[in-house]
Amino acid sequence: MSFEKLDQLGRRLEALEHALSILGADEATHMAVGGGEKRAEAMANLAGMYHAQSTAPEIAEWIEAAQPHTEDQQLALAEFRRQYLNATCLPTEFVERKTAATMRSEQLWRELRAVGDWDSYLPALEGVVELVREEARLRADALKLAPYDALMEQYDPGNRTATLNPVFADLKTFLKEFVPEALEVQERRHQRRPRRDLNGPYPIEHQRELGLAAMRAVGFDFTHGSLAVSHHPFCGGVPTDVRMTTRYRTDDFLSSLMGVLHETGHALYEQGLPKEWSHWPLGKARGMGIHESQSLFVEMQLARSPEFWHFMLPLVQLHLGRNALPGWDIEDVLSEVNHVERGYIRVDADEVTYPLHVILRYELEQDLVAGKLEVSQIPEAWDAKMTEYLGISTINDPKDGPMQDVHWPGGAFGYFPSYTLGAMIAAQQWAALEKAQPNLRDSVRKGDFTGINAWRAEQIWSQGSRWSTPDLITRATGEPLNPAYFKAHLRRRYGD
Amino acid sequence: MSFEKLDQLGRRLEALEHALSILGADEATHMAVGGGEKRAEAMANLAGMYHAQSTAPEIAEWIEAAQPHTEDQQLALAEFRRQYLNATCLPTEFVERKTAATMRSEQLWRELRAVGDWDSYLPALEGVVELVREEARLRADALKLAPYDALMEQYDPGNRTATLNPVFADLKTFLKEFVPEALEVQERRHQRRPRRDLNGPYPIEHQRELGLAAMRAVGFDFTHGSLAVSHHPFCGGVPTDVRMTTRYRTDDFLSSLMGVLHETGHALYEQGLPKEWSHWPLGKARGMGIHESQSLFVEMQLARSPEFWHFMLPLVQLHLGRNALPGWDIEDVLSEVNHVERGYIRVDADEVTYPLHVILRYELEQDLVAGKLEVSQIPEAWDAKMTEYLGISTINDPKDGPMQDVHWPGGAFGYFPSYTLGAMIAAQQWAALEKAQPNLRDSVRKGDFTGINAWRAEQIWSQGSRWSTPDLITRATGEPLNPAYFKAHLRRRYGD
Repeated sequence: MSFEKLDQLGRRLEALEHALSILGADEATHMAVGGGEKRAEAMANLAGMYHAQSTAPEIAEWIEAAQPHTEDQQLALAEFRRQYLNATCLPTEFVERKTAATMRSEQLWRELRAVGDWDSYLPALEGVVELVREEARLRADALKLAPYDALMEQYDPGNRTATLNPVFADLKTFLKEFVPEALEVQERRHQRRPRRDLNGPYPIEHQRELGLAAMRAVGFDFTHGSLAVSHHPFCGGVPTDVRMTTRYRTDDFLSSLMGVLHETGHALYEQGLPKEWSHWPLGKARGMGIHESQSLFVEMQLARSPEFWHFMLPLVQLHLGRNALPGWDIEDVLSEVNHVERGYIRVDADEVTYPLHVILRYELEQDLVAGKLEVSQIPEAWDAKMTEYLGISTINDPKDGPMQDVHWPGGAFGYFPSYTLGAMIAAQQWAALEKAQPNLRDSVRKGDFTGINAWRAEQIWSQGSRWSTPDLITRATGEPLNPAYFKAHLRRRYGD
Repeated sequence: MSFEKLDQLGRRLEALEHALSILGADEATHMAVGGGEKRAEAMANLAGMYHAQSTAPEIAEWIEAAQPHTEDQQLALAEFRRQYLNATCLPTEFVERKTAATMRSEQLWRELRAVGDWDSYLPALEGVVELVREEARLRADALKLAPYDALMEQYDPGNRTATLNPVFADLKTFLKEFVPEALEVQERRHQRRPRRDLNGPYPIEHQRELGLAAMRAVGFDFTHGSLAVSHHPFCGGVPTDVRMTTRYRTDDFLSSLMGVLHETGHALYEQGLPKEWSHWPLGKARGMGIHESQSLFVEMQLARSPEFWHFMLPLVQLHLGRNALPGWDIEDVLSEVNHVERGYIRVDADEVTYPLHVILRYELEQDLVAGKLEVSQIPEAWDAKMTEYLGISTINDPKDGPMQDVHWPGGAFGYFPSYTLGAMIAAQQWAALEKAQPNLRDSVRKGDFTGINAWRAEQIWSQGSRWSTPDLITRATGEPLNPAYFKAHLRRRYGD
């Protein structure tokens, strides 16, 4: 009876989520420019209904009284309890205070980032960090976790600094040595074989066809999703109707194509979630790190490999014409898509330097939450780490330094590690998969992803939120998170 | 305080309406085919929330206790009360029974209409009519109206058979004589000047540009709306983001163009509603008859006139090319778009014969609701009227006779008169406008619709639901509904 009540509540919440997801995707793709204000008002109201219905006090009683009959029901109930606790552990008064402060802070950041005015932005960020410290303590008390762990718990349940810190430290040590090595290897390759220029323009309609062909090839189900255009590419919508977007530049098709493949990785996960549990927390994607591992599996493990391009290059010529890449062979494409470069901006970074951007933030935000670092000290700390890790200074450039990301202005602390966690999990999954399917690379060369997707569907997608992030990794790959696989992947692709 | 409660309730209801409207438009335009089941489930849940929130018992107390301070607030409260009464006058048990029955009946109709199997469909429609009779009695008791008037009240508040019956009788008498006359005039014109053939193919992308140009010209605001493609054209969305659709045939651009202009008429009304009241019933469009008058004003009064084509023909050539209509002049276009023909199907009818299709249904459904006609007698009654009004028999063709419309299978009785009411109101508005702006036709020839739209915005659009349908007609045109204007319009366009 109580289980049935939770089931019915789940259907109402799923309806509101459905509306919010589709309205969100629609806003970025098809909404008229003047429709934004009412859209925001409508979505705020729907989000309010969602919050009220999902945190109602009687739910606690239903959860306590519910009697699961199967293992799945038991897991579903446990995950419902976990989510309910996470959603209700902050007092309403605090949530309102934080929402108001982060909204103001984000608006101010958008304005001041453009002109790189750190000093004027400082007080707002100090306010946010103060609230985040308070939030971390509140969550920590309710969840019986350390403060920063309690923040991470929102994004990747089960992640703990005690496990992650050694992994990230190991990876950092490796990368500080490996980035110079990879750059040297790249330099030698360029001397042997100079980089080629793209031969645009590439008409958008043709790029779109190429993107659709790539999506189809790696397993996107077009009866349950579509591709549109938006300013910032994303993968949204609902599992039965995944809304993917990309953007096009006529002088370069690779950026859109690789972006499409990244988002297709997210989409496959959503399309593969267990449908019978779609209205329960159990039926949702596990978390940010696992989600990123699915997009990076497609984008990095698959789509930047020589085997993939063996299959993809003819498709490019089919859709963009024989002269799309005149004289290029697979090695030229790989040199282009796997180009390594030290840079200021995280979102523009390649897979070799990217983790260092993340580790820098992960280290700083732990110190910020613990009170070991104050906001006013960020620019110097940022510059010191950028200089140490990547050999570039940001001291006079806050815009491309600590002001570059929306996460901190929006109060989202504990999220950054998920990105690099995703890259490591993707490499570990590839290794496990290759052990299970020794002919893996041959299949990729033929454009046959059925075996790969069957494995991922079984090991990851269909598992929904049955297990914590660390447990899911162990169950899928046979061992806990191990940075060795990601390091081996980088060595293989970028090393000597 | 109570007024404030109603205001807040209105904002929540507007959010749910917003979601339902955009999800509905999205379903017909951008949804993946496999997304339908979850979409239906989500929309049913959201509609359930809307119903529960809009019919909550405490609202009755808020309405009674609310103290309006302005005339607008007074009108807003009155309209809220009227809508609340209409929404709550049926017992939940009855609503559930009717919903289930009409859903089954509609599904069965879709199946059996395709094969024209009236006999198998009969029992389902008998069940629906029985429920509609019960509904009419329940509504009549609650609203202190005659049963059929109580049904019409849902679609055009204030419409009464006592006023409409003489108007429709007058129009019927006129049309029974006028249709043969119009056909004769048309025949003579064709002898003088034979009909020309269209010179397709007309590429869809060019047709789209032409449609957008036509929308822009007659005043559609693209910052608050857009045009997409769907199987059945519609005008949906919300006033700040109107979602219009059309469909294209490459062998004919006129059907899409005239459809676009029809939907633009609906869209202008929505875009012109009073924004400050958008979350109150007062701020919504008045009803079906008035809405149809706005679409027919653009489609029939404007867009099938010689003055409009003086301006439109060059636009056609601009977007479709010089040879789009080789050798055609305005008279040829008018002969094409104003072609009169006796036919079986209401939705395919021209503006001369259309009202007879409606009057037939209006007469039959009054008798059905009153119990003077039984469902089993419909085919003969339908045939008799079709033969009398249009000289064609449907006795052996139920598919194109009484099975052609979704209204009765869906339990929507009292709706049909709105279509012809709309045509009459549109003609009456044009006449009133021409009295106020004697140079009206000159402006149309120049493609200048600003004066026309300013008048309509003031007289109709900005009025929202302040007045009943009859009161709105009188306030806007200076007199009650008068069929003389529509008859004069037909005589002018189709007579000798």
